[in-house]
Amino acid sequence: MSTAPSLAHRVLGGELRAAARLMRDLDDQAPSAREAMRQLFPRTGRAYVVGLTGAPGAGKSSLTDRLIAWHRKRGRTVGVVAVDPTSPFSGGAILGDRIRMQDHALDEGVFIRSMATRGNLGGLSRATADVVAVMDAMGKDVVLVETVGVGQDEIEVAALAHTVVVVAVPGMGDEVQAIKAGVMEIADVFAVNKADREGADRTVRDLHMMLELRRATATRPPPDHDELHRFPEGEPWSPEDARFWEPPIVKTVATRDEGVIELCEAVERHRAHLTATGMLKAREIARARAAFVALLREQLLAGALARLAGEQGHLDQVAARIAAHEADPYSLADELVARLRG
Amino acid sequence: MSTAPSLAHRVLGGELRAAARLMRDLDDQAPSAREAMRQLFPRTGRAYVVGLTGAPGAGKSSLTDRLIAWHRKRGRTVGVVAVDPTSPFSGGAILGDRIRMQDHALDEGVFIRSMATRGNLGGLSRATADVVAVMDAMGKDVVLVETVGVGQDEIEVAALAHTVVVVAVPGMGDEVQAIKAGVMEIADVFAVNKADREGADRTVRDLHMMLELRRATATRPPPDHDELHRFPEGEPWSPEDARFWEPPIVKTVATRDEGVIELCEAVERHRAHLTATGMLKAREIARARAAFVALLREQLLAGALARLAGEQGHLDQVAARIAAHEADPYSLADELVARLRG
Repeated sequence: MSTAPSLAHRVLGGELRAAARLMRDLDDQAPSAREAMRQLFPRTGRAYVVGLTGAPGAGKSSLTDRLIAWHRKRGRTVGVVAVDPTSPFSGGAILGDRIRMQDHALDEGVFIRSMATRGNLGGLSRATADVVAVMDAMGKDVVLVETVGVGQDEIEVAALAHTVVVVAVPGMGDEVQAIKAGVMEIADVFAVNKADREGADRTVRDLHMMLELRRATATRPPPDHDELHRFPEGEPWSPEDARFWEPPIVKTVATRDEGVIELCEAVERHRAHLTATGMLKAREIARARAAFVALLREQLLAGALARLAGEQGHLDQVAARIAAHEADPYSLADELVARLRG
Repeated sequence: MSTAPSLAHRVLGGELRAAARLMRDLDDQAPSAREAMRQLFPRTGRAYVVGLTGAPGAGKSSLTDRLIAWHRKRGRTVGVVAVDPTSPFSGGAILGDRIRMQDHALDEGVFIRSMATRGNLGGLSRATADVVAVMDAMGKDVVLVETVGVGQDEIEVAALAHTVVVVAVPGMGDEVQAIKAGVMEIADVFAVNKADREGADRTVRDLHMMLELRRATATRPPPDHDELHRFPEGEPWSPEDARFWEPPIVKTVATRDEGVIELCEAVERHRAHLTATGMLKAREIARARAAFVALLREQLLAGALARLAGEQGHLDQVAARIAAHEADPYSLADELVARLRG
C-alpha cells in the first residue's frame, strides 16, 4: 500500500511504465490499484472518449489508426483501448496491420492498451472504464475505445464513450440487420467503411431508412432508455427538439485514407452539439453511471466468491453439488447473499 | 407467490403459455419466478445443450434451422434460444428467413425463445441460463443456443453448453483471426458454412493450422482455463490423453442443406466422447458453475441497487455526483458494499 501514492503520482507525471503497471495491478484487482485510482480520480474528466464499434472485419482498427493520425496532426495526445480481439492493437492482426501500427507505437503522444475480453467473470466493462480513466488522468486529450460485436459487452463499453461511431461495411446483409436490432440507439455517427466495395450505396441507403424510421417513432424513448440514461427523459427523441441529433452517415475507405477527415469532422460536430445543447452533462452522468455499476458489480461478485472460498470451499465444489442436483443454484445463491448481509 | 407452484406445474405439464409467462417473469425478476425455478430444478439436467456461435452473417440461424430439422426427424424435441440479435429467431431477419422459420413455429416439438441482448445490466448469461433450464425442465431433448460475436457474453453463454459449434465463413480474413484470438478454446466442432464460396478451403486450412498449433502447445492449459473449468487440471490438453478432443472441421452450405448431416454427426461424436471419457461430468460442473456465478452476480447487483434506491435516492443521483467530481466511484462503491455487509 505504501507504494500506491507514488504510482498514481508517477502516472500523473506521464510515466508510461507506471501507467502500464497500474493497469496490470487493476487486472489483478490489487488493493493498491484501487487506492491509486482514487488518487487519480480528481484528475479525470478532461479526455474526450470516442467509441468505435462494429462486426469483425469492418475495418475498425484501420479507422482507429487514421483517427489517431488525424488527432495527432492537431497536436492532441491520444489513448487507444482495444477491447476488440480481432484488433491489431490487441495482437490479433495480420502482419501488414501490425507493421502499420508501429508508426504510432513509437509516438510518445499515443498510448495503446488492449483488453482481454475474457477471464474476468464479467468485469470487462469495469476494466475498460478503469483503463479509460487512467488514460484520462495521464492527460490524453482523446481516448478511442475499439470494441467488437453486438452483444451486451459492447453496449456497456459504448456507454463509457461521449461519442459512439458504429462502423458498417457493404455486402454484409446481416450486418445492417445487426445494427437495426442492437446498435441503433448507441450510434452517434455511422461510418460505412470499405466504401469502394460494391453495395456501399445500398448500405448507406439502408441506414438512412432506419434513421427515417427512428425519426417517425422518435417521440417514444428507446427500449434501453433506462439502461443507457444518455438523454433526459424522452425529449431529445423528438426531431423538433434542438437537442435531437441525427447521426450522420460517412463513407470511408480507411486503407486509402478516404473520408477520414469527414468522419473526424462528424465526430467533432457531435461533440460541439453535445456541448452547445448541454447534453454533454447527461453523457457524463451516463458514463459515470456505467462505470459505477460496472465497479459495483465486480466488487460484489469478488467479495461473494472470496467469502464462498473461505466458507464452503472452492466454487467448483458448489458447482459440483449443483451439477449432482444435491442443491439448486437459486437456494445456494440466496443463502450466500443472506450470509453476506448478516 | 401463491400462483407460483401452479406455474411450475404447468410448465412441467408442457404448457407453452406457462413457459412463456415464466420466462417473462424471469425477465422482470419477479420473486415468484425464482420460486418456480426452484421447483423446476429437480426436473432439469436431461437436455443436451449445443451452442452455436460466430460472427454476424456466418449463417448460424440457417444452420440452427437445419439442426432443428435433423433432430426432429429423429423424434427429438428441440428448444432454441437465440441470443443473437441478427438471428431470424430473434426477429432480426430478412423476410425470406422469417418465412422459412415458420415451418418450425407450427411444430409443437420446437420451442423458440429469443433473448434481448441488452437492458438487464449484465444479466444476459443469467437470463440465458434460466431459459435453458426452463426448456430442459419442459422435457426438450436438445437445446440449441445461438449467440453472436466474440465478446465475453459469448464466452459466458457458451459455458452453458455441452458442445460448442463455432461457425466460420470463407472470405472473412479477420473472422479466422477472431476465432484465433478468442474462441479457439471454446470450440468443440468447427462449421465452415457457405462453403460453396471462394476461399472455403483456405478457411479450413487456416483452422487446421490453428489446431496444429494448439496440439503443439497442448501441455499447457489454455489461458482461460480458470474461467471455463471445463477440463480437469491440464491433462486433456495433451493429445496423448484419451480424453483429448480434436475439434472436427465440417464444411456446410446450410441454405442447400449440404454438410448438415456431417455437422450433426460431429456433434453426436463429441457428445459420445464426453460420455465415454467421463468428461460429461466436468462439463456439467462447468455449466452449473457458469449458471451459478451469473445468478449470484445479478442478484448481488440487484440487491445493491435496490438498497441504493432506498437510501441515497436514484442511481442517477449517485452518477451525477461522480460526474460532478463530488465523489469518486471507488469510495462510493466501497461505502455501499460496506453498508450492505453491516
